[in-house]
Amino acid sequence: MAPEAPVLLAAVSLLSAFHMGYLARRVGWSRMAHKIMPPAVSGPPEFERTFRAHQNCVEFYPLFLVTLWTCGIFFNEAAAAGTGLLYMVARQIYFNGYIKSTRKRLPGFYLTLAALFTLSLLALTGVAARILDQYFHMNGGGLQSLLCCPVRPDSAGPGLTHPVFSSWIKCLGIKGHSKTLQRFSKDQLRWL
Amino acid sequence: MAPEAPVLLAAVSLLSAFHMGYLARRVGWSRMAHKIMPPAVSGPPEFERTFRAHQNCVEFYPLFLVTLWTCGIFFNEAAAAGTGLLYMVARQIYFNGYIKSTRKRLPGFYLTLAALFTLSLLALTGVAARILDQYFHMNGGGLQSLLCCPVRPDSAGPGLTHPVFSSWIKCLGIKGHSKTLQRFSKDQLRWL
Amino acid sequence: MAPEAPVLLAAVSLLSAFHMGYLARRVGWSRMAHKIMPPAVSGPPEFERTFRAHQNCVEFYPLFLVTLWTCGIFFNEAAAAGTGLLYMVARQIYFNGYIKSTRKRLPGFYLTLAALFTLSLLALTGVAARILDQYFHMNGGGLQSLLCCPVRPDSAGPGLTHPVFSSWIKCLGIKGHSKTLQRFSKDQLRWL
Repeated sequence: MAPEAPVLLAAVSLLSAFHMGYLARRVGWSRMAHKIMPPAVSGPPEFERTFRAHQNCVEFYPLFLVTLWTCGIFFNEAAAAGTGLLYMVARQIYFNGYIKSTRKRLPGFYLTLAALFTLSLLALTGVAARILDQYFHMNGGGLQSLLCCPVRPDSAGPGLTHPVFSSWIKCLGIKGHSKTLQRFSKDQLRWL
Repeated sequence: MAPEAPVLLAAVSLLSAFHMGYLARRVGWSRMAHKIMPPAVSGPPEFERTFRAHQNCVEFYPLFLVTLWTCGIFFNEAAAAGTGLLYMVARQIYFNGYIKSTRKRLPGFYLTLAALFTLSLLALTGVAARILDQYFHMNGGGLQSLLCCPVRPDSAGPGLTHPVFSSWIKCLGIKGHSKTLQRFSKDQLRWL
Repeated sequence: MAPEAPVLLAAVSLLSAFHMGYLARRVGWSRMAHKIMPPAVSGPPEFERTFRAHQNCVEFYPLFLVTLWTCGIFFNEAAAAGTGLLYMVARQIYFNGYIKSTRKRLPGFYLTLAALFTLSLLALTGVAARILDQYFHMNGGGLQSLLCCPVRPDSAGPGLTHPVFSSWIKCLGIKGHSKTLQRFSKDQLRWL
């Protein structure tokens, strides 16, 4: 067992796999409630919406895993894990909304996209800085100053002091706890 | 090339990717047999069952990969690889059964769930023990005694002596070979 | 942040996730153009072809990721990344072709299969050589001589001088640049 394995990313991935299993179960319950025997996938509007909600989650799941892990390994593990949890909450809101009506899927879907966009942007920054550093012997200074944070592998990492992430924290109304989170983040960086 | 890369997990993942490719091919053959040109996905019941059997495999595939790797990295590589092989066999039984009739998909499906449940439980144990150890400076003793096995990263790992896994071995009727498997497992732990 | 993390594989995976997001967006645009409100998935032939083209990409995406990473870690990172880029181009050709007509999906699909087949073959070689080496204490000599290249972890790696990969380079008409690529490949091997 590798001692430096990113356990937070693994925990979030495992949790999201359980969540996906639960959503698949929800489709099964909907089949039972509406008496839709497999392999049929059409039926009353409510069943079709439940089925499509799950399909949409399935389609995006590998994208979520790829952005979660690249963000966690090349940018910051705690930031990736936190945004990953947000993604799961967003998917649940989306799923519950979609079952009620097609229009009500939208708030959850926008939150899903926001979480995916955050993960993608942070992952892109981390990967680009590393490529500049490794293959072009630049220290990724341009990218760093652009995002006002240290992204070099040998530095302490951007942590939760990063403007993108701290604005998320504000957005989520957990600003009061951000100091605890920052300490947590700096503490865990020792194992990265 | 990282010298400690988990080659058994990689081998099982690669094998499962080939298996998924083979199942996709089966859907193609079914299309040809029933003359269903893409993009149509409806047709005679047998084709629709084949199509849905493959879709179900696709939906669960990322969940399988996530539980396989978290189990293999945070619990035990050989146990994960073995259960991964069982999952593939279960999927094949499920696929063959589903093509015959909707009811005949069930034995394979229950075996699939058993394999996924085993992977999930072992992965959860490993990840939880690691998080307790790293972030809360506990040695995960409660979890260990719960499952009667050592799960600390510095120990030799639970191996195939673990009660959950050894009951699987019994269940599969390979008890006679379990000593060989145990030796194999202890041998391979040197590379983890 | 692990210093030896395979950044090229991460970059290609991230890029492919963006590409998948773009293809999902294309389905959304097609929904708007043909006024197909979710959760409906049937409509004019052009919409159905667009929808199925995306579904096919979704079905193969985890297979692509598994073969990309096993090829990149156990065979050669640059070869995997290059073939991964080819896969994305192939998927775009497939998608564009499928929208026009069912028959026009074939050239892109064959190229997709060629990229997947290359990744699979290289991954299989790398994984098999490693297993022979680790568990059977053989140096995988048979496999090496079969593919006329060094695959031992302690060697410099097969690089882009490998006959399978160099025939791909010729095939893609970039033979003139292969020396630059080889130097790049040898340079980056220091970080593997």
